[in-house]
Amino acid sequence: MSKRKICVVVTARPSYSRVKTALSAIKAHPKLELQLVVAGSALLDRYGNAVDYIEKDGFAINEKVFMVLEGENKTSMAKTTGLGVMELANTFYNLKPDAVVTIADRFETIATSIAATYQNIPLIHLQGGEVTGNIDEKVRHANTKLADIHLVSSEEARDRVINMGEDASYVFNTGCPSIDLAYEVAKRPELDFDPIEKYGGVGSSINWKDGYLVVMQHPVTTEYEQAREDVTKTLKAIDKLGIPTFWFWPNVDAGADGTSGGIRSYREIHQPKNIHFFKNMLPEDFLRLLIHSKCLIGNSSVGIRECSFLKVPVVNIGTRQHGRQRGSNVIDVTYDQKAIEDAILNRVEASDIIEEHIYGNGKAGEKIADILADITLRFHKTITY
Amino acid sequence: MSKRKICVVVTARPSYSRVKTALSAIKAHPKLELQLVVAGSALLDRYGNAVDYIEKDGFAINEKVFMVLEGENKTSMAKTTGLGVMELANTFYNLKPDAVVTIADRFETIATSIAATYQNIPLIHLQGGEVTGNIDEKVRHANTKLADIHLVSSEEARDRVINMGEDASYVFNTGCPSIDLAYEVAKRPELDFDPIEKYGGVGSSINWKDGYLVVMQHPVTTEYEQAREDVTKTLKAIDKLGIPTFWFWPNVDAGADGTSGGIRSYREIHQPKNIHFFKNMLPEDFLRLLIHSKCLIGNSSVGIRECSFLKVPVVNIGTRQHGRQRGSNVIDVTYDQKAIEDAILNRVEASDIIEEHIYGNGKAGEKIADILADITLRFHKTITY
Amino acid sequence: MSKRKICVVVTARPSYSRVKTALSAIKAHPKLELQLVVAGSALLDRYGNAVDYIEKDGFAINEKVFMVLEGENKTSMAKTTGLGVMELANTFYNLKPDAVVTIADRFETIATSIAATYQNIPLIHLQGGEVTGNIDEKVRHANTKLADIHLVSSEEARDRVINMGEDASYVFNTGCPSIDLAYEVAKRPELDFDPIEKYGGVGSSINWKDGYLVVMQHPVTTEYEQAREDVTKTLKAIDKLGIPTFWFWPNVDAGADGTSGGIRSYREIHQPKNIHFFKNMLPEDFLRLLIHSKCLIGNSSVGIRECSFLKVPVVNIGTRQHGRQRGSNVIDVTYDQKAIEDAILNRVEASDIIEEHIYGNGKAGEKIADILADITLRFHKTITY
Amino acid sequence: MSKRKICVVVTARPSYSRVKTALSAIKAHPKLELQLVVAGSALLDRYGNAVDYIEKDGFAINEKVFMVLEGENKTSMAKTTGLGVMELANTFYNLKPDAVVTIADRFETIATSIAATYQNIPLIHLQGGEVTGNIDEKVRHANTKLADIHLVSSEEARDRVINMGEDASYVFNTGCPSIDLAYEVAKRPELDFDPIEKYGGVGSSINWKDGYLVVMQHPVTTEYEQAREDVTKTLKAIDKLGIPTFWFWPNVDAGADGTSGGIRSYREIHQPKNIHFFKNMLPEDFLRLLIHSKCLIGNSSVGIRECSFLKVPVVNIGTRQHGRQRGSNVIDVTYDQKAIEDAILNRVEASDIIEEHIYGNGKAGEKIADILADITLRFHKTITY
Repeated sequence: MSKRKICVVVTARPSYSRVKTALSAIKAHPKLELQLVVAGSALLDRYGNAVDYIEKDGFAINEKVFMVLEGENKTSMAKTTGLGVMELANTFYNLKPDAVVTIADRFETIATSIAATYQNIPLIHLQGGEVTGNIDEKVRHANTKLADIHLVSSEEARDRVINMGEDASYVFNTGCPSIDLAYEVAKRPELDFDPIEKYGGVGSSINWKDGYLVVMQHPVTTEYEQAREDVTKTLKAIDKLGIPTFWFWPNVDAGADGTSGGIRSYREIHQPKNIHFFKNMLPEDFLRLLIHSKCLIGNSSVGIRECSFLKVPVVNIGTRQHGRQRGSNVIDVTYDQKAIEDAILNRVEASDIIEEHIYGNGKAGEKIADILADITLRFHKTITY
Repeated sequence: MSKRKICVVVTARPSYSRVKTALSAIKAHPKLELQLVVAGSALLDRYGNAVDYIEKDGFAINEKVFMVLEGENKTSMAKTTGLGVMELANTFYNLKPDAVVTIADRFETIATSIAATYQNIPLIHLQGGEVTGNIDEKVRHANTKLADIHLVSSEEARDRVINMGEDASYVFNTGCPSIDLAYEVAKRPELDFDPIEKYGGVGSSINWKDGYLVVMQHPVTTEYEQAREDVTKTLKAIDKLGIPTFWFWPNVDAGADGTSGGIRSYREIHQPKNIHFFKNMLPEDFLRLLIHSKCLIGNSSVGIRECSFLKVPVVNIGTRQHGRQRGSNVIDVTYDQKAIEDAILNRVEASDIIEEHIYGNGKAGEKIADILADITLRFHKTITY
Repeated sequence: MSKRKICVVVTARPSYSRVKTALSAIKAHPKLELQLVVAGSALLDRYGNAVDYIEKDGFAINEKVFMVLEGENKTSMAKTTGLGVMELANTFYNLKPDAVVTIADRFETIATSIAATYQNIPLIHLQGGEVTGNIDEKVRHANTKLADIHLVSSEEARDRVINMGEDASYVFNTGCPSIDLAYEVAKRPELDFDPIEKYGGVGSSINWKDGYLVVMQHPVTTEYEQAREDVTKTLKAIDKLGIPTFWFWPNVDAGADGTSGGIRSYREIHQPKNIHFFKNMLPEDFLRLLIHSKCLIGNSSVGIRECSFLKVPVVNIGTRQHGRQRGSNVIDVTYDQKAIEDAILNRVEASDIIEEHIYGNGKAGEKIADILADITLRFHKTITY
Repeated sequence: MSKRKICVVVTARPSYSRVKTALSAIKAHPKLELQLVVAGSALLDRYGNAVDYIEKDGFAINEKVFMVLEGENKTSMAKTTGLGVMELANTFYNLKPDAVVTIADRFETIATSIAATYQNIPLIHLQGGEVTGNIDEKVRHANTKLADIHLVSSEEARDRVINMGEDASYVFNTGCPSIDLAYEVAKRPELDFDPIEKYGGVGSSINWKDGYLVVMQHPVTTEYEQAREDVTKTLKAIDKLGIPTFWFWPNVDAGADGTSGGIRSYREIHQPKNIHFFKNMLPEDFLRLLIHSKCLIGNSSVGIRECSFLKVPVVNIGTRQHGRQRGSNVIDVTYDQKAIEDAILNRVEASDIIEEHIYGNGKAGEKIADILADITLRFHKTITY
C-alpha cells in the first residue's frame, strides 16, 4: 500500500518550532510520507534562517518557495500572500500531496490554504480555534473555514472551532506540539551551555549566572506605527531595572522595522549595560534558557504555551496574545513602562508557579501523525447549522 | 464633510446583477462616494462582458483589474486568486477607500477580502451566512471571518453569521439587492420585447409565444470532470420534452469547458429543434422573460432568490444551491434525465405558486447604503466566544 | 556520459510547427535529452490547443506553464510576459537544463530568455536575425542580445546577427525547421483527405475540388485598433471574387479580438457563400492543402517560408512580414480591397513560380540537434565591437 | 499646449545618482512634465533607501513600486524582474506617459523596457552602448533593442549602438549625467564635513585627516558564489596596508549575501583597525570624499566615470567594469591580494593624473531634457541593415 503523502508548509521560524515534533512523527509513521515545503521568511537569513535548523534536524526539504516581497509594509504583506498563492499552487500541483497542512495564523498561511483548497486537496489546519486581538485573528478563523480537518491545541479551541460550524468529528484536540519539546526538555533541564559563547549575539557581555530575564517582543501587525514606541517602553523598563537580560530579535512582520528600529536606536543612544541581544537559538537551548530564567517578558506565544508547562513566570505585554487561554504564571500589562517594571518585579519574586497542561501533555506530534494516517480525507464540507 | 469612500469590487456578471441596486443607492447617497472596481471575468467578452452593462447603466469605473489566468482548471483558479490579491492590493493602495465591499462567494472574492484586510481597510461582506455544497461554501465563510461588517440577505443567514462568532451588532439582514430589481420589474411585468430579435443568440428559431422554458445551468466547481455529463442530462430532458426553450450560456468557472463543451457537442450532434441559446441579457429583460416562462431549470441562484419573489416555478438540479433556503416554488432533482423531465412537467402545471419574501422585500440597496453611511467602521475584531 | 539536457519552450501553435523537426531530432539524438515545456497559448483551446498535437506527435511534456492573462489588450500582453518570467524561472529551477531554447519573436518568448539568462543557463535562440515591422522586431533582437548561441534560418539572418555584435563562431545558419516538413510533404504531395470532412469548421460548404484559395491573416500587434478594419478588406475582396476559399482563424495576439471580431461580424451580416472557416489543421495537411491551392492570401510567415520552397503563389498583405527576405512567388499589397483582388487574380494565373531555398534545404532539425550536441555551452558573452 | 510627460523609473541608488541632474533638467523644462517612479531596491532600507534622498532633493514621486522578491539568489532576480513587468505595466497604464525612460543595465531595468514597449509607449534608454563582462552586458544591449531612442554617454557608446542596427538619427551622445554632478562639485571641492560625524557608520574610528582610501566593491552577478572570496582579497589587502579607509557597503544583487557576508565575517574575526564602514552618503559628499582621497579601490563605475573627470586615482578590481572605456587614472587588477596592494601603492604615489572628458563635459542633464522635449517620439522601428 502506498503511503499517504502529507505536505506541510512551514513559512516562519516560530511555526517550525511549533510543529517540529509533528514533522518527526509524520516522517517516522509507517503509513505516512512527509513532503516538507519551506517558504517565506523561513528561508531568509534576516529572519533567523529557519531552513538551516530544519536541515540540521535531518528533514529533507521537498521544495523551497521564495515569496516574501520586500517592503515590510501592509501592501507588501498582501502581495506576499498573493504571490504565495501563485507559487504554492505550482508546488502542490507538482508534489501531488494527499493532504496539505497549514499552521496557525501568520498572514501568509492563508496562501497555503487557498492553494490547497482551490485544487481540491484536503486541508488540515493546526492550532485553529484560538483567540487573539489582531490580523492573526482574521487569518486563523479564515483558515478554519477553508480547512477540512482541524487539529487544535486545547479543549477551549476545540469548542470554538465546533461553534464556528465545523463538523465535530473532524476537530481533534491533539495539544500543541510545542509542548512536546518542552516535555522532553523538562526531563533534562540543565543549562548545559554558555549562551553568549555558543550564540554570540551583540550588546553588553552581561553577567547572567546569578539570574537573568528573557525578552521576546514582536511587533503587533495592525498597530503598525506604534511598534517602535511600544518596544521602547520595554527597553526603558529593562534598562532601569538593570537585571541581566537576554533579548531576542523579533521575526518578520509588517511592523518589523518599527520594533527592530526601536531596538537599534535605543541601543545606539543608551547603550544599556544589562542587555545582550540574540538573533535566534536552538529551540531546546531556548527552552532551557527559559527554565532557568527569572521571567519571560514580551508578547511571545511561548509565554502562554510552553511557559505554563515549564513553570516559568511571564510578563505578557499588550494585545498580541489577547484572548489566548493562559495559566496562572502570566501577568498581563499594557505598554506602560512602570507597569512593566512592577510586573517583572512581581514575577521575579513569585514562588507559587505551578505546572499546567492547557496546551497538551507532550504527545501532540504523535497524536497528529496518528490522526493523519487514519482519518478519511475529504475536501467537501458544509457548515453544521 | 468629506464623503465616505466605499469601494465595491465586481468580479463577475452575476455578482453585478446581485448588487446593482446597492451600487445605485451608494452612488446616490449624500454621505457616500462610490469607487467601482471591475475585475476578473466581468471584464471578459466570453463571460458576458459585464463591464459593458455596467457602463451602459451609467456607473463610472474607477479601475479595471485584469486578473483571470487562462487555463480554466483548478490550478489556474488558485493562481487567478493569487494574482487578484496582488493587483487589488495596488488598487486599494491607490484608491484609498474608507471601506471595501466584497460580494458573496465566488472563488476570486477572497482576493478582495485579503487585499483589503491586510491593508487594514474595513471589509464589508455582502450575502454571507448562506449554505451551499461546494468550494463556494469555504470561500463564503472564509470571507465572513475576514470581514468586519456583514450585510446578509435573510434571517437564517444572519443567525448563521452570528453563530460563527461574529459580533451581532455588525451583522445586518438587508435582504438581497437582486430582489430589488425583481420588485421593480414586478411593477411592470409585461414582456415588451422579442428575445431573439433583441439578443440574437444561436440555435433554433423557436416559437416561444405560446410558452417556453428557461435553462441556466452552471458547472459545479469541485465536481469538475462531471460538468459535461451533468449538463447532457438536462439537454436530453429538454430535447425530449420538446417545449420551446431559452438556454443561457454558463459563466466562467473551473468546469466551464465541461459544461460549455457538453452544450456545444450536443448541439452539433443532435441539433435540438426546440432550444435557442443566449449568451446574456439585460437583467430586467431576463426577469421579465422569467416571469412569463413556464419554469426555470438548472442551478442558478436566481431560481432560489428572485423566482420565489416573482412566483416562477423552478426545477433546481444538483448540489449547487444545496443548503440555500428556498421557497415552495422549487423542486430539487439530481442529475437524472427522467427526474428532470418529471419535475419540469410537474412545475409547468403547478398552479399554487405563492409570493415569498425570504431574501428581502425589494429595498435592500437602500438599506445597504444607509448602513454603510452611518455605521462605525472598524478593522479589528475578536470572535465572540 | 550523461546526456545534455535541452529544454525547449513552446508558447504557441505556430512556434510548434516551426520547430517540430528540431524537437524530433533532439529527442532522437544519442547525446541529447529533450525537456519539453509547453506554455502560454499553446495550452489553450481557443488558440488551437497545440498541446494536443504535440502529444499526438509522441512528445512527452515535462511541464505545462499557464501564463496567459485574459484581456487580450496591450497591458495584459505585458503582464502575461511578466507572469511568464516568474513561472518559467520555477520551471528551469526544477528541470535544471543544460541549455534553454527560445523560439523566434512572439512577445512572450522574452520571458523564456530572461528566466534562463538570469539563472545563468545558456540560452539558444532560434530564428533570430530576421526583419519585420512591428513589436516582434524589438522582441526578436532583444532575444538575440540575451542569447548565447544563435541558430538562424538564412544567410541574411546570420549576417544580421553578427552585425549586431554577436560572436560569429556562435551564429549558425541551420535553415528553418519549417522547411523540413515542407521537404517531407513535397515528396508525397497528394491531397489525400477531404478538408471539410476531416476538420469540420464553420461557414459555407464550398465546392473546393476545382480550385480554391487559402487565407490566413493575423492581427498586427502594434496596429491594434485597425485589426478589424484590416481584415474586412480581405473579406470583401474574397467575397467579391467568389473563388472557393478556406480561411484559417488567427492565433492569439493583442489584436485578436479585432480580427476575430471582424470575421465574425462579416460572416453574420454578409454570409459569404464561398468561404469555409477552420480553426486549425495538422501541419502536414495544411501544407498539402497549400500545395494544391491557387494562392495563399494574408500575412502568415508560411507564405514567406514554406511557400517559396513549395512553389505556392502568395499575396502578402500589410506590414507583418515587412523586411523578411522573400521569394519571387510573393506579391505584396497594402490593406486595400482592390489591390488585394488584383493581386489574387495575378497570382492565380501565375505560371512561372520556381522552387527557392532561402530558408534552408529541409535538414534544419538535424543540423540544430547536431550543433546543440557538440557546441561548447557558455552563458557569458561580450559584444564583438 | 500640454507638456510632454516623461516617466523615469529609478530602481536603485546608483541609478539615481547617475540621472539626478537629468531629472532636475526634465522637471525644470517648460515643455516637459516629470513623472518619477521609484521602484525595486531604491525603496529599501538595507540598500541605501534612495527614496529618502530623492524626496530630500525635492522630487515628487508619482508612484512607488515594490517588486524585490527576497532571496537574493538568481531565481529571485528573475522573479523580481517578472514581478516588475507586471507592476510597472499597471504603473504606466495609470500614468499614461508620453515616453518612458529606463536607465543603464541593472537586471530589473528590462522590466521597465518590456512594460513600456509592450504597451506601445516610446522607450528611451540612457547609457546604452557600453561594454562590460557579465549579465549587465546582456541586459544593457537587450534594453537597446527594445528602446526607440538612445541617449548614450560617450562617442564609443554611440558608435556601438548604431553598429547594433539602431537608426543613427535616434542615437545621441549626451554624456553621462553623473559627470554633471562631478562638474558642479569640482567648482567647490572643499571637504566641508566630517564623514564619521555626519554619517555614523560602523567599524574603527579611523584617523582620516592625513589621507585615506575609499573602497566600493559590488558583487559580480554571474560569478555569484565567488563573491565572498573575492571581497576577502580586498579586505586583506586593505588590512595589511594599514592606510585609513572608508569602505562603502555594496548595493543589492544576486551576490550581495556573498560580498556582505564576507565583509561581516572579516570584521568579526579580524577587526581591522584602519577600516570604517558606511552604508551610503549624499552623492555630493561622496564625490568630495573621493576628490580628497588617495585612491578609489573596487569595481564601482564611479571609478571609470566620475574619477577620470575628477582626477582621482583608481584601482579597478576584476571584471565588473571590463570593456568600459577608461581614462589613464585607472589601473586594472584581478582578485589577487598582492596585486591589489601593489596597485594601491602605485596609485597612491601617482602624480600625473590628468582630467579627461570621456563621459561628457558636465551638461548631460540639460542635453537629455532638450532632446526629450523636441524629438519626434515613436514606438516603431526596424533594424537598419
